[in-house]
Amino acid sequence: MSLPGLRLKSNADRRIKAGHLWVFSNEVDIAQTPLTALESGQEVTIENASGKFLGLATVSPNNLVCARLHSRDASHPLDKSLLVHRLKVALSLRQRLFEQPFYRLVYGDSDLLPGLVVDRFGDYLVVQINTCGMQRVQDAIIEALVQVLKPAGILLRNDSGARALEGLPATVELGFGEVPERVALVENGVQFEAPVWTGQKTGWFYDHRVNRARLAPWVKGKRVLDLFSYIGGWGVQAAAFGASEVMCVDSSAPALDLVEQNAALNGVAERMSVVEGNVLDALRELKNAGEKFDVVIADPPAFIKKRKDIRNGEQAYRRLNEQAMRLLNRDGLLVSASCSMHLAEDSLRDIVNASARHLDRHLVITERGFQGPDHPLHPAIPETGYIKALFCRVLPA
Amino acid sequence: MSLPGLRLKSNADRRIKAGHLWVFSNEVDIAQTPLTALESGQEVTIENASGKFLGLATVSPNNLVCARLHSRDASHPLDKSLLVHRLKVALSLRQRLFEQPFYRLVYGDSDLLPGLVVDRFGDYLVVQINTCGMQRVQDAIIEALVQVLKPAGILLRNDSGARALEGLPATVELGFGEVPERVALVENGVQFEAPVWTGQKTGWFYDHRVNRARLAPWVKGKRVLDLFSYIGGWGVQAAAFGASEVMCVDSSAPALDLVEQNAALNGVAERMSVVEGNVLDALRELKNAGEKFDVVIADPPAFIKKRKDIRNGEQAYRRLNEQAMRLLNRDGLLVSASCSMHLAEDSLRDIVNASARHLDRHLVITERGFQGPDHPLHPAIPETGYIKALFCRVLPA
Repeated sequence: MSLPGLRLKSNADRRIKAGHLWVFSNEVDIAQTPLTALESGQEVTIENASGKFLGLATVSPNNLVCARLHSRDASHPLDKSLLVHRLKVALSLRQRLFEQPFYRLVYGDSDLLPGLVVDRFGDYLVVQINTCGMQRVQDAIIEALVQVLKPAGILLRNDSGARALEGLPATVELGFGEVPERVALVENGVQFEAPVWTGQKTGWFYDHRVNRARLAPWVKGKRVLDLFSYIGGWGVQAAAFGASEVMCVDSSAPALDLVEQNAALNGVAERMSVVEGNVLDALRELKNAGEKFDVVIADPPAFIKKRKDIRNGEQAYRRLNEQAMRLLNRDGLLVSASCSMHLAEDSLRDIVNASARHLDRHLVITERGFQGPDHPLHPAIPETGYIKALFCRVLPA
Repeated sequence: MSLPGLRLKSNADRRIKAGHLWVFSNEVDIAQTPLTALESGQEVTIENASGKFLGLATVSPNNLVCARLHSRDASHPLDKSLLVHRLKVALSLRQRLFEQPFYRLVYGDSDLLPGLVVDRFGDYLVVQINTCGMQRVQDAIIEALVQVLKPAGILLRNDSGARALEGLPATVELGFGEVPERVALVENGVQFEAPVWTGQKTGWFYDHRVNRARLAPWVKGKRVLDLFSYIGGWGVQAAAFGASEVMCVDSSAPALDLVEQNAALNGVAERMSVVEGNVLDALRELKNAGEKFDVVIADPPAFIKKRKDIRNGEQAYRRLNEQAMRLLNRDGLLVSASCSMHLAEDSLRDIVNASARHLDRHLVITERGFQGPDHPLHPAIPETGYIKALFCRVLPA
């Protein structure tokens, strides 16, 4: 097997040597190895300016990130054999940490499978393929998953925003077996059904599992408000952990229908209510009505999708957090979460601090939460860390 | 009651308004309000350049941090009444989060009691007084603690390094009742005795509680190495969580005696061994002897005590982490911890990454741990955050 080479400019190998897996298009010596000569998703050897082998990668010739390493060993090309190996290594981590088969099984770069995400819901797998390289081996991915996990069904949720950058179409299709409209999962002992075909991302957000678990000591006997509730990940768990009352706010009627079904699954429906609408509007109305809560959870969708959105996005987080804080009882808890990779934890900390000062409150952060261990951080790739959840106790100043 | 004023220069009120509690000596308008006219620990009103009231503080005239706010309300001076109120607010947080009375009850600035630390061991309290202001009200602190907690004894561990900066002497003395040589505590269901009179700091480090709890899924049936073990906080918990073998390394013979006693308390003595000596020497000897471990915990004392030590300290962390990583089995866990306030989490992440690259390993961070919720972070005072614990899965590259 002889693979084409992709040669880097001098010193452009430093980030790769430091552990990163991505090659940017301006780092390629295109005089020697033109990107335009390569097919989308083609496997290549990455070489430094002197021709020394650095690793094997697949190329996305039209993307700013034009190649991603999947191996630093020339004898391990991206084929079913490597996929099976990587899946087994990924699975062993999750099996060590989780008692039940509900988790993110593959988390892209961190599992040395850049461009591939697999969420496991027991016998069902939901796959996201986000790069040309992974798209090229889609059949091998399915075969490897079937070999390692023997699933009842594999759903290909190939409709992420990242695919557009790669020139890949958005599709949702069955990859193997059969997958029902909704699949069951258990998180922190609480039961859910997730709409894997039509819901957000893969249908469920395993990334906040550990943060939701931290709600337990805070919500017992308390009144809780869950903003941007989606299908009730936080809210239904708060009720199951003993909240006296939980109100979920979301703009999606189908999501709120599932909040109610998930509440019923856990026998907590009579303690839950839902409000359909824009969250900031709902906050204003609750304020005007004099409503107060002991715990408010603000876990919005990413307000900052691109670096250029940082300033506007930070203002949006500030508005949300301050309005949420206004609804707290005298000794209340604000859970301020963000899934924006471009919002640093320090910035979110400054936002809750500024909001507290503006309202003349004394705020301390009792817990700094991040994504769970089924979304490991690759230490050379800051982009692999994106979840923040600050538990903020808010008191009179 | 009329308190002397301490006037700030123009714009020197910005940090205070943003939530910080400290005044630096170069921010004081000493022409108007000379610091030298004030007694150590005296209570003052802090005013901005126009004379507007900002808060009440106590002064440390000879320290770079020359005043610390304890209240933003002129009607709440630092007396027994305020101390009782602050203690009740602090206690309610801990009682909500912990089932048993073993925790840091007061964490200085975050509990709006700058300069005061109180660790609770059931009926015994260990107090650290770190500022002139708190020293001045030591008797009121004892009275307030007795009123709120009815302890059997209060020990004053007034021997922290911070006291020298305040011109306070180092003393260890009984403050109330009686306090035995060692006191019992339970952390994560594991029993310990801590040498509160003579041990490090207050005798125990509650700050890593949540991180130690995370060991559970990693250590069952595994061989564990605990570096800088002190009295076995990590190591004895690893054994209690099911490790097949735990080796504790520390330079202190009395600390290792307590490792053995704490192991015996939990019935795990036969699975534990201790090595007395310098940790880097021990790592070299273990390497030469071909010893391997599934889990290595590196939780050293602060290598970076001052900002000027950052470069040397980072090198020390790098050496330690790389040597620790060398002893790991093929799929191993390195717990890399730091209690240096001046070592950013990002720097520790870079250190474990560089070590892994140097040894040609693939490392991912499964969990980013911080101090527990009884050490809340004050969002305007970064100094209140200091603990880091990275759980690193280390694999062949």
